[in-house]
Amino acid sequence: MPRANDIRMKGFRDRSSVEEALEAALDGISPLPSEPVPVTGAAGRVLTGDVVSTVDVPAFRRSMMDGYAVRAEDTYGATAYNPIPLRLVGTSMPGTVPDSRVAPGHCVTIVTGAPVPDGADAVLMVENTSGSGDQIEATAPVPIGRNVGRIGEDVAAGDGVLGSGRFLLPQDVGLLSAIGCNPVDVVRRPVVRFIVSGDELLPPGSSPSGTKIVDSNSPMLAALIERDGGVPEVVRLPDEEGAMEGALSRPRADVIITAGAASVGSEDRVPILVDRLGSLTIHGITMRPSAPTGIGTIGGVRVVILPGNPVSCLAAYDFFAGPVVRSLGGRSPDWPYLTVRRTLARRIVSQIGRTDYARVAVDGDLVDPVAISGSSVLSSVTGASGFVVVPAALEGYPEGTEVTVHCYHGDCDT
Amino acid sequence: MPRANDIRMKGFRDRSSVEEALEAALDGISPLPSEPVPVTGAAGRVLTGDVVSTVDVPAFRRSMMDGYAVRAEDTYGATAYNPIPLRLVGTSMPGTVPDSRVAPGHCVTIVTGAPVPDGADAVLMVENTSGSGDQIEATAPVPIGRNVGRIGEDVAAGDGVLGSGRFLLPQDVGLLSAIGCNPVDVVRRPVVRFIVSGDELLPPGSSPSGTKIVDSNSPMLAALIERDGGVPEVVRLPDEEGAMEGALSRPRADVIITAGAASVGSEDRVPILVDRLGSLTIHGITMRPSAPTGIGTIGGVRVVILPGNPVSCLAAYDFFAGPVVRSLGGRSPDWPYLTVRRTLARRIVSQIGRTDYARVAVDGDLVDPVAISGSSVLSSVTGASGFVVVPAALEGYPEGTEVTVHCYHGDCDT
Repeated sequence: MPRANDIRMKGFRDRSSVEEALEAALDGISPLPSEPVPVTGAAGRVLTGDVVSTVDVPAFRRSMMDGYAVRAEDTYGATAYNPIPLRLVGTSMPGTVPDSRVAPGHCVTIVTGAPVPDGADAVLMVENTSGSGDQIEATAPVPIGRNVGRIGEDVAAGDGVLGSGRFLLPQDVGLLSAIGCNPVDVVRRPVVRFIVSGDELLPPGSSPSGTKIVDSNSPMLAALIERDGGVPEVVRLPDEEGAMEGALSRPRADVIITAGAASVGSEDRVPILVDRLGSLTIHGITMRPSAPTGIGTIGGVRVVILPGNPVSCLAAYDFFAGPVVRSLGGRSPDWPYLTVRRTLARRIVSQIGRTDYARVAVDGDLVDPVAISGSSVLSSVTGASGFVVVPAALEGYPEGTEVTVHCYHGDCDT
Repeated sequence: MPRANDIRMKGFRDRSSVEEALEAALDGISPLPSEPVPVTGAAGRVLTGDVVSTVDVPAFRRSMMDGYAVRAEDTYGATAYNPIPLRLVGTSMPGTVPDSRVAPGHCVTIVTGAPVPDGADAVLMVENTSGSGDQIEATAPVPIGRNVGRIGEDVAAGDGVLGSGRFLLPQDVGLLSAIGCNPVDVVRRPVVRFIVSGDELLPPGSSPSGTKIVDSNSPMLAALIERDGGVPEVVRLPDEEGAMEGALSRPRADVIITAGAASVGSEDRVPILVDRLGSLTIHGITMRPSAPTGIGTIGGVRVVILPGNPVSCLAAYDFFAGPVVRSLGGRSPDWPYLTVRRTLARRIVSQIGRTDYARVAVDGDLVDPVAISGSSVLSSVTGASGFVVVPAALEGYPEGTEVTVHCYHGDCDT
């Protein structure tokens, strides 16, 4: 029968600071190689190179107005009292090649976006014309170039359009489409394998039953990994010695994340396996929650060992795994949470030498620590607006301190 | 041959204010009906009802420590100098039903998360024990209930867990999974049909050629619609009279968006069709850009007519179409952009009676209007950090004014 001593974590002799752990997590991590994607699927991806336009947009002189393409000099001196007749000889429509050249004394009906025909050098607004049929009259002059967009006005061939590392916004994709940039070379999305094991865990979608609990970490982590641009792959293992070893020794992913099951030795088993199959750099962090976090590498693949407790799992993901996923995908390792400054309605108690992840509820200009009697309780994060980090150098924050709140959603207003 | 007068927009006699247009866009819009989705796919969706737990989590007394499950009274008076012997009779592992009852003088090895066996009422830490084999000794007392999590400690049966209208965060999905809530009832995602037509437009992925330009609006709008929780469906129509009428008269979607092609009469054709097939409430808005925006309804489906110019299209989507998409999906109609306050390095010129969408570049504490000689130029939004809205009541903002910047990405720092 196992003694309790045998099943306790052994790797905690030298806990690391949060800073050391983050450094270890990001050590050697750089964006993954490029892959081509269709321009229609490029939003939210990250460019791997500078995009230089190879074309002029527009590639033709474009009318900026509905009106008449004219030779400007034909209109000089025109007024309502001295209308100058022009003969209407054709129409220029968008996407077509104008069917008529504009000769002296001639004009062509043109709409916004249509090519200005050869011979014409200005577009006369309808308001400055009168007449009917094929005969119109200019009632005001128009200067050369007026209402004519030049070739390459939007983007000229050779223009740098968007830089390497750019996170592509909807309008960026519009611009890339306009210049015919397709496919678009972007950073490959990191495949993040999340290994779940634990005989006490039922798969998501089950109902809890007896002493079995339902896995809450895998759907939570899958959503976090997608938020961070990764491709989550959940692998559910039987709680057997060989299964985890098999999964870890063939890390067919860009990152491996485990979340400790609570079975005999499992908190230890994964770190020990990582150390044996590769290297375990960090095990145990001076942080609450999330102390039992580990960081290692197997076959060049970063492994992040998260605690099984869902709140610890969330915090440790955000502190150590999220930055790895985002960095591999070419994004900033920084937290994707917005911050707001609020005044503490009640003090937050921490301990020198330990970084605290304190869940808080924002209420107007104030912020209140959420009661965390059970730090394992996921409702402490679903009921919170966000979190405050208490650095290791502080014993906490007294009531009335203005603190930075990292908002779980938006700017903490929901 | 068409006179220019025939092909100009006719619906602009009575332009509406931005506020009137938004009111018309949102008139009668409420969240779509509920649909069940698997809990693993519920992140980012919106709850249609309050979720009340039907189960206790945990459903058993859970050990909060690695140690020994004991009867507390057996340990009273124990010290290092007066160790009290306990007989080790079994082990309790997570997910199992303990194999032994703890009788007086007995104890059971237990790990964090495992069920506390009947008979035991406390968990004694390993640190407070000595001994080996089947015989251990308590070297300190433990009070009743210490290190034992109660049934329903995380969530009790009958507890309200998350409220109707909640936008589901990763941790919410974890909690729903833990209480066995599956499927989850969420607002159906709105299907947003975007109708593209225009003979001058080549499909995204093409190279621009001659007087043909490549459609930039559909990939941009698809990304915006996805951002807002909608399901984009791009429909590409030949530029024929009957095609648009057919598409509009059978609006098999939750919202219809068109972006004006610039062909003869098309800027007018769509509003006229909407008016004929249903009702056209708004046509023409006192706004720059995006004046030629229309809003109507066909067969109970909101139709938003966006300008074809990509920048106008983006702004009009954000002002009028985005709020409809988000509201149908149960989200807030408010802009999903973060705001920052910055000081204007140069004035923004506008006009009384007109709302301006001014693209700006944030640089440290300052913000600069982006040159908008060509308001049609998509690079004016890809080069901007965000936008400033100049209300219709103002002529602009003088240099040095502190203004609110709506950030295209994050908090304008990229």
